[in-house]
Amino acid sequence: MSSKQTDRRDFLKLGAALAGGLGLGVTKPALAELPGPEAHLHGTDELVAYGERSRFVTSTRIAHGGRPSPDTFGLDFHIAAPLQDSVGVITPSSLHYMGTTRGSFVPDIDPAKHRLMIHGMVDNPLVLSMEDLKRMPSVTRMHFIECAGNRANSRMTTVQETHGMTSNAEWTGVLLSTLLKEAGVHAGADWIVAEGVEEVKGASSLPMTKAMEDCIVCYGMNGEPVRPQQGFPLRLLVPGFEGIFNVKWLRRIKVVDQYYMTYNDYGHLTQDPSDAALGYQIGPKSVITFPSGSQKLPGHGFYEVSGLAWSGGGKVARVEVTTDGGKTWMDADIRGTAHPMAHTRFSFNWNWDGSECELQSRCTDELGQVQPSRAQVRAFWNIPEGQPFGVKGQDNSIQPWRIASDGSVHNAIV
Amino acid sequence: MSSKQTDRRDFLKLGAALAGGLGLGVTKPALAELPGPEAHLHGTDELVAYGERSRFVTSTRIAHGGRPSPDTFGLDFHIAAPLQDSVGVITPSSLHYMGTTRGSFVPDIDPAKHRLMIHGMVDNPLVLSMEDLKRMPSVTRMHFIECAGNRANSRMTTVQETHGMTSNAEWTGVLLSTLLKEAGVHAGADWIVAEGVEEVKGASSLPMTKAMEDCIVCYGMNGEPVRPQQGFPLRLLVPGFEGIFNVKWLRRIKVVDQYYMTYNDYGHLTQDPSDAALGYQIGPKSVITFPSGSQKLPGHGFYEVSGLAWSGGGKVARVEVTTDGGKTWMDADIRGTAHPMAHTRFSFNWNWDGSECELQSRCTDELGQVQPSRAQVRAFWNIPEGQPFGVKGQDNSIQPWRIASDGSVHNAIV
Repeated sequence: MSSKQTDRRDFLKLGAALAGGLGLGVTKPALAELPGPEAHLHGTDELVAYGERSRFVTSTRIAHGGRPSPDTFGLDFHIAAPLQDSVGVITPSSLHYMGTTRGSFVPDIDPAKHRLMIHGMVDNPLVLSMEDLKRMPSVTRMHFIECAGNRANSRMTTVQETHGMTSNAEWTGVLLSTLLKEAGVHAGADWIVAEGVEEVKGASSLPMTKAMEDCIVCYGMNGEPVRPQQGFPLRLLVPGFEGIFNVKWLRRIKVVDQYYMTYNDYGHLTQDPSDAALGYQIGPKSVITFPSGSQKLPGHGFYEVSGLAWSGGGKVARVEVTTDGGKTWMDADIRGTAHPMAHTRFSFNWNWDGSECELQSRCTDELGQVQPSRAQVRAFWNIPEGQPFGVKGQDNSIQPWRIASDGSVHNAIV
Repeated sequence: MSSKQTDRRDFLKLGAALAGGLGLGVTKPALAELPGPEAHLHGTDELVAYGERSRFVTSTRIAHGGRPSPDTFGLDFHIAAPLQDSVGVITPSSLHYMGTTRGSFVPDIDPAKHRLMIHGMVDNPLVLSMEDLKRMPSVTRMHFIECAGNRANSRMTTVQETHGMTSNAEWTGVLLSTLLKEAGVHAGADWIVAEGVEEVKGASSLPMTKAMEDCIVCYGMNGEPVRPQQGFPLRLLVPGFEGIFNVKWLRRIKVVDQYYMTYNDYGHLTQDPSDAALGYQIGPKSVITFPSGSQKLPGHGFYEVSGLAWSGGGKVARVEVTTDGGKTWMDADIRGTAHPMAHTRFSFNWNWDGSECELQSRCTDELGQVQPSRAQVRAFWNIPEGQPFGVKGQDNSIQPWRIASDGSVHNAIV
């Protein structure tokens, strides 16, 4: 075991060492000196009906990559979640990442009027109201969603900037397979095209194999209706695939015999179909959220290093952490249940000795896929040294954070 | 199998029958007739930073039992969650139930100033800042919380009125056992007293056995800081126990040698200590949330019956449903992972033939405890026929919903 690592039993024996770093061991606490609240606030009728967060909690989303959102051309939204403030695995709905493709408006949809049509190569075309859908057998599952371009800003400062285009929620809805079986899919109908109501339709082509496997037509998210920015009242959830497939404001699914080009197909369009299909699924990923870029450790001593891991390939099976820039790797703890294609919280008990070092995390999923190093991704895509990533496919490379001796945390990608 | 029940395979073969009830099977859907959105809304800077729910989603909490909140005397809050609108198992933080005991204000606490003191019969008294706590090893777990008086309004109309004083969240924090071991508990220190910052302190005495088992000092809830109404910045979470133990705005834990009377002890105070301890743990419970009181089924045909089950005794092991008032019981599906001491979603595929009937659900936990009938609870507490429940201990009896032939749903407790 490295001198920088400790497990919980060791931690509990570290009273003296911790006293310096953690402010423990105050011998004569004065009860009268314990601070009280700033004020006692009366509840209002509004706050009885619907609670709000503390005025001291100011965590917010930001426009991805520093560009305004909607972007300079008024064309799309790319809004990143504040992963540096995350705890557990649920992303609060108000802080969920959001991406749109050439649609800078959020449709305002009356759910009583909304319909989902399923047609094309089927025996029984369907038009379903929200009430119809809510009567059907449902599932509730944890899944992450992620923009394929999440790492496009891999050299920026904070984890919100480098990794914020992903979020995780408890999704509730009807399996797409339930609807497709009810409609009766024709032989040879190997694809579907899913379409939203927004001006550019936001359609995506999806292989029938995936459509029948685990896709969900979602009306619920984190215990309430899907939020408008996430597709209210209905969105498609394609577990483990690039975010572009999770069609928001879903109103039409056409069953077809082949891949159809849509407005969403930048990236895949120029590729060989077999290569493009490879790129649909998000690879094994992880990132340390504490400590992460622009945070500052107040001093040496004990810290719980914490982060998120996920993979489009299934459950996270293992997360390793290095505190010496990749020379030695140690197993992190996986917190709670690792769900398939879902953010999984990991943590690692660490005693920082106060010297400069580099933290990284590495995810292995249940398929045995291992998150690659930056050098491996560079070699795979044949990207010359010094050139940025993100131009080809997804970047699921390991994120290094450098801890300076003053406790400041920096992105070690240069 | 009852004629009213069907499994998913049957459902998928019921095309014709469903067409009447579900509006399926429209043969010539007209694409041009699919409705579009009411409007396309521009994002504002505020909505980029922090999303909101749709204006069409109006689900809110209500004052429990129809009394104002704060109550007539300005003494306490009892606010019930809208379970009739719930999907999945997470209760949105804004819609979490809330209860206070003789404290009608919500403390407004600056987390930078807040401290947690652990003292009394310990070797090393501790005073911890929020920063200290967040450096320590953490856990993230799903747990329900519930007011012991949740069923006090068992004759009212809606499930929000009859069962709304319970909620479920993903909680993140430090195990209380981690802190107590760090402090070093003396021999004979068999109890703790946990205290909040509010005017009446909201203290509760808790046996050391439970304190060391699975209690969490929580700073996180559903992926963000605990909300003010739920104890920001710090609350105690005592899994499976009556809500009164989940001390909010936690600032002090005193390790003591015996049970201490506190302001929260109505109910337990007049009981024999061994009886009182029996009453701490919430029994096996369940309730159907759809269809539930005041909802209306639009007609006969297929419905997914859905509800929540939970127990202070551990995981939910089984949920049964009856559609004939208790004559025959059938297994419901448990959706997703059943976590210990956590709300668990169940569902049941049902074809309603349009005749009057009575739906009930019954929970069995992993200890083998079975949710009792109303008659069993009446007999146990020796409550005469016609007298209301809720005066003694918790009421975890089965909830019956009567479906009238017009589809209206009524509380069948008379």
